[in-house]
This record gives sequence, C-alpha cells and structure tokens, in this order.
Amino acid sequence: MTLAGPGRPRARQSTRPGATAREEILDAAAELFTTQGYATTSTRAIADAVGMRQSSLYHHFGTKDDILEDLLAGTVAEGLAFARAVAEVPATDEGAASPAARLHAVALFDGTQLCSGRWNVGILYHLPEARDERFSGFLADRAELRGLYRNLGAAAVPAPLRPGDPQHQGELAFRLVESLVSLRADGQVTPASPLQVADAAMVLCGAGSMLGSIRKQSLELVDRLGRELPHA
Amino acid sequence: MTLAGPGRPRARQSTRPGATAREEILDAAAELFTTQGYATTSTRAIADAVGMRQSSLYHHFGTKDDILEDLLAGTVAEGLAFARAVAEVPATDEGAASPAARLHAVALFDGTQLCSGRWNVGILYHLPEARDERFSGFLADRAELRGLYRNLGAAAVPAPLRPGDPQHQGELAFRLVESLVSLRADGQVTPASPLQVADAAMVLCGAGSMLGSIRKQSLELVDRLGRELPHA
Repeated sequence: MTLAGPGRPRARQSTRPGATAREEILDAAAELFTTQGYATTSTRAIADAVGMRQSSLYHHFGTKDDILEDLLAGTVAEGLAFARAVAEVPATDEGAASPAARLHAVALFDGTQLCSGRWNVGILYHLPEARDERFSGFLADRAELRGLYRNLGAAAVPAPLRPGDPQHQGELAFRLVESLVSLRADGQVTPASPLQVADAAMVLCGAGSMLGSIRKQSLELVDRLGRELPHA
Repeated sequence: MTLAGPGRPRARQSTRPGATAREEILDAAAELFTTQGYATTSTRAIADAVGMRQSSLYHHFGTKDDILEDLLAGTVAEGLAFARAVAEVPATDEGAASPAARLHAVALFDGTQLCSGRWNVGILYHLPEARDERFSGFLADRAELRGLYRNLGAAAVPAPLRPGDPQHQGELAFRLVESLVSLRADGQVTPASPLQVADAAMVLCGAGSMLGSIRKQSLELVDRLGRELPHA
C-alpha cells in the first residue's frame, strides 16, 4: 500500500499506469479527453475510470480545468527544458554542436515526447478552451518553445537562404514537429516519424547535404542533455 | 426578401454573411464551434446567433452533427476537387505543368482555402468527435486528398532523394498545409503563408532551386483549373 495525495492510504487496487493517484487521474483524463472530448467528460467519469470516488479526485485537482492544465503543461515541459539547455550550450564549448544540429536535436527530442505518451495529449492544443487565459502558463511555455525553434532556425540557415523572415525555417520546424500530433491522430505515426521530421527541418534549412554529421551531433546532444534534465 | 429553405419567406433581417438561411446557420455554427467549442454549443445557441427560432433551424439541419459534417466537408471539398483536376491533366498536354509544379499548385490552392474562410474551421479536424464514422464522407474525402498529395510528391521527387517511402515528401507537404490551421489559431497566419508552405514543400522535394519556374507554372494551374471548378 502506498500513500496517495494528502496522507490517505490507498484502499483500492491500482487500475492505471502511474506511481501515484494523481498520475492515475491524469492518465484517465488524458484517455477520456482525447477519445471522448474535453467538454463531454465529467470529473465523475474520470473518477470512475480511475476507480475512485469523485470526492477523492477533488483532493488532487480542484477543477477539470486544473487537470487539463497539468496535461497541457506536460506536453511542453520536457521539450522546453531540453530546448533551453540546448540554447545555453556556449558555442565555444569543445564539441559544441553546430546551429543546425541544435535545431535537429530540439525537433527530435520534442517530437519524440509528443509521440511517446500513452495518449495523444498534444491534440488538446486545438481545443478553443486551451486558448483561454486560465492556461496562460502553458501558453507562455509553448510560446517560449516556439521562440527557441525560431532562434535556432535563424542561426542554422545560411544568410542567402533567408531573404525575408530569418526565423521562417525555425517556425516551419516547430509546425512540422507539432504536426506529429495530427499524424498520430490519423494512426500514421511510426517510430521513425520524429527523426523524419527533424531531418525535414534540416532540408528546409538548406542543410540536407550534411545530414550524416548533423544526426551524429544531434544524437550526442539528446543523449548528454536529455539525461541531465530534471524529470518532469 | 429572399426565399430561405423550404419555401418560407424570411421574415427577419439577415445578421450574418450568407445568401441563404442555411449559409447563415453554417456561419454562426462555425463561429461558435471554433471559439466556444463543439460539445458546449447547442443548436439553440446557433439559432440565437442567427436570429431564428430553433424549430426553424431544424428545417435545415436535423442535428448538430449534420452541421458539423457540412462544415468539415466544406474544408476539403474545393481542395479535393482542385487536386483531382490537377492529377488528371495528361502529362502530354501542351503546357502541362511539371510534377513539382502540380504539387505546389495543390498545396497553394488547398492552403489558401484553409486560410480564407471567416472561421478557422480546419481546427475541428482535431475534435475526437470528428473521427467518428458518422463523418465517414468527410474522412474519406480527406484521405483521398492526402493520397493525392502523396502521389504528387512521389512524382515530384527525383529517385535518389527517396530511398525509403517514395511518398514521404508528399505526406510532409500535406501536413505542412494542414499546419496552417494551427498557425492561424495562433494568430500567426499572413497572406503569404500558403505560398510559403507550398514553397517549403518544393524545398523538401529537392526542387528549391527551381522555385521561379515552378511558381509560374503553379499559378497558371491555379488560375486555369481553379476557375473551372464547380463552386462548392
């Protein structure tokens, strides 16, 4: 028997993945929101899907919006932490990756996160509800992540290829990675999809002929910085 | 006074764009679904937003799902009709566009459709509800459009650039065009966005150095075939 939430022993059998009751609630909500819809899912239905009383659920989350906020935040947290770490590696470091390899690593890591959860939570970005200022924390994180893609893109693209908006290719990389959510909803995602999207971002940056060395540097970054991340 | 629906004179002032009551209902529903959410919008709220009785709305649509079906179908109808027309131009025609220019034209035309309606209806693709087999007509149309992108992509990419899935670049083009929906939801779309996405598809196909001639052929296709389409 493990302790769940505010000091209560768990009297029931665990039915969901997750080390804590909180994680089980998030898993059940993610399933229901992505398969049945957000508005049509009640906290009662979530509690039922976990096998707990609705009143117990309220020990962990005050409202259904709080659950959505946690799920949304979870889709960007690790990608953002990784992108920040990549952006902070000094270019003068021994073995510092090229700008293109940095963008590749961010796309690969972020895309892998979007494809790897049990439920396709990224699809909830598209809810009108998710644009509400109640979710300003998530929205700010996603905007920061988008900005890091744009900056990395500008650094990766040779000047002659960016006559207009220098951040254009970074924007396209961000959008391509997010399109993995739609690919997944269509049942078309494969284990190779995140790498394919990161590679496509390189082609858009005019770095397609250097894919071999970029991939090598990118995988090193993912391995080294990914391991150091605080676990979300 | 114009006739609206089944022979009834319209006794009220029109408050919405649309030549018929049916179009006004679709406009109001598109606004409410994309800004408030699908599940939370009632047919009563739609009728109120048009300024008609709920019972009058039911002369035009039996259920809320029927309205959603019409809206979803509207987002692919013209893009699909155009892509079919492009795919059917015999390669032997005088002035037949290159495979790359055909893919460019489809992306440009389809992307322009997604960006041009009053409401960002494409965002409704991401509703779990929209994956239901009630919407099999829309889903089949979208799948056919995706298949046309994939085929055009395979024809556009030189063999050495497609060692794996020959339709990979066509798939990426389809996803990039659909990402305009997300760009629009973020308030980042500009009049140049559809062309930028079509150009990016060319870079992914290894045809970036021929953009000048591709754009010229593509615009001719859009102009010639777009004009001949039955108006959706």
